[in-house]
Amino acid sequence: MTPALAIHGGAGTILRSQMTTDLEREYRSGLESALQVGWKILASGGSALDAVEASVASLEDFPLFNAGRGSVFTHDGRQEMDACIMDGSRLRAGAVAAVEHVRNPIGLARLVMERTEHVLLAGDGAAEFAHQHGVRFESDEYFFTEHRWLQLQHARAEGVIQLDHTADELEIIEESESVAASAASRPKGTVGAVACDAKGQLAAATSTGGMTNKKFGRVGDTPLVGLGTYADEVCAVSATGHGEYFMVGVTAYDVAARMKYKDCTLDAAASETIARLTEIGGEGGIITVDAQGNLALPFNSDGMYRGYIRNGDPVTEIYR
Amino acid sequence: MTPALAIHGGAGTILRSQMTTDLEREYRSGLESALQVGWKILASGGSALDAVEASVASLEDFPLFNAGRGSVFTHDGRQEMDACIMDGSRLRAGAVAAVEHVRNPIGLARLVMERTEHVLLAGDGAAEFAHQHGVRFESDEYFFTEHRWLQLQHARAEGVIQLDHTADELEIIEESESVAASAASRPKGTVGAVACDAKGQLAAATSTGGMTNKKFGRVGDTPLVGLGTYADEVCAVSATGHGEYFMVGVTAYDVAARMKYKDCTLDAAASETIARLTEIGGEGGIITVDAQGNLALPFNSDGMYRGYIRNGDPVTEIYR
Repeated sequence: MTPALAIHGGAGTILRSQMTTDLEREYRSGLESALQVGWKILASGGSALDAVEASVASLEDFPLFNAGRGSVFTHDGRQEMDACIMDGSRLRAGAVAAVEHVRNPIGLARLVMERTEHVLLAGDGAAEFAHQHGVRFESDEYFFTEHRWLQLQHARAEGVIQLDHTADELEIIEESESVAASAASRPKGTVGAVACDAKGQLAAATSTGGMTNKKFGRVGDTPLVGLGTYADEVCAVSATGHGEYFMVGVTAYDVAARMKYKDCTLDAAASETIARLTEIGGEGGIITVDAQGNLALPFNSDGMYRGYIRNGDPVTEIYR
Repeated sequence: MTPALAIHGGAGTILRSQMTTDLEREYRSGLESALQVGWKILASGGSALDAVEASVASLEDFPLFNAGRGSVFTHDGRQEMDACIMDGSRLRAGAVAAVEHVRNPIGLARLVMERTEHVLLAGDGAAEFAHQHGVRFESDEYFFTEHRWLQLQHARAEGVIQLDHTADELEIIEESESVAASAASRPKGTVGAVACDAKGQLAAATSTGGMTNKKFGRVGDTPLVGLGTYADEVCAVSATGHGEYFMVGVTAYDVAARMKYKDCTLDAAASETIARLTEIGGEGGIITVDAQGNLALPFNSDGMYRGYIRNGDPVTEIYR
């Protein structure tokens, strides 16, 4: 059995014309680091579960993506993060919604899975659980990125709620270049990982900072089993895009259901699921892996930050 | 096209040996009232969506069920309620999690669907949204029931988290009889409704007060699309039972997926879904309806408070 790992850093309107060479290099380096950290686990006989947690934690620590450090700001200037991890071999899952100041929400989601009888903990209760288990918290300064703050000001001024990636966002990145030239000032997209280990066991993990300028405690698809994240014995799926459509489409589980009930391949199931997402008006993508280590990473947006590794050589891609 | 409506008031260990005649009569009267209020809408050509909202609101107002008035207490003595409504004809959904003091959480879920671009709002944010839309709030006194309070003291003392319905609970009801003999002192179970209207359009709604003695902001399956509640063009589903298993099983959507991808009947799909729930260790039941007005109400627990109406005569059942 060949292990396989795929990751994403969000989907959206990512246009080559608006990307600089330096910025692209940074994104690719963030994706490659995350692939390597997960692959190291898989290559040494580790579990898919450990691999996806490690890859997602690496993406959370990387400030260009919209998860962990680099999360976007809500309407009232807070950073509320969501994460979910699922172990396909045990059909168990753990998730957190609307947690603040937790350095690695995906690690907290794993703790929910391992140490509670619950699947999803939200808000202050989740933070209380994190404190009781000695989870690492960080200050506002750790999470703050100039770029995300500017993004909120733009979104507030225009009264819009922003998706993961928009062409506007790349423009803001360029603007913020002149304001604060550090790499930390230009974060991006929901992150996720799916893996198949040497035993053919599957796992999925997804983490996000949500939508810029979101109000009213909105929870998206990321922390919800079967919607933004899913793994069982046939496949593992992590989604990114306009969450509400992934919710009503039950997108992550839809891939598994097509494989199980229509007896189709991962590739066919994943493509059909994205075709249905398009049909219902949704935009974004999914990364998927089956128990034979096959991968499929379809999306219907202009781009998706993504990468995969099967034989030791990491591949990263951004555009269609 | 014959309209059809089914409702539930929770599943669990409901034993005939522990039920009194008076108590059973009360449960049945609560179920019948909820059926009548929804049926009145369907019979006069109203929509499935309006019918399920009205039936669930009626069940929320009825203090014997664990939703709205009569919700159970969390570990720290609060009543956090979850609800979800889904309009199968438009594939749209609205949901709220961990809201306090809202008289009818299902009405708030409907507002989320109709007035926001989001699907799920949680906690204080959801409350803020409710206030802005003039939703009716009630005091602690309205929601307080002696029986639920005693149930929390028992659960705390034993360090357990209680499901919807347990034989213990019926015993506590008997004990509380001597403490406070009012009907309001003995509430029960997550509630839900599914309907098919004269146009063959489907809708589902579910509402709950969650688990007695729950900690850490636990969110169950009820407010989550595809897990505890789902409706599309082929079927509508509302679930009740041990939520965590319905979450990892993606139970509500699983029924629709089997119908769509295996091309099987509602009855077969619903039975298979419950068989899988049993396989993964879950306990509870689902109420389902398809676009031809067929109904299926399978469960694997000892009992499920349930009812249905197709031709004007309401049927209510409790045991297997």
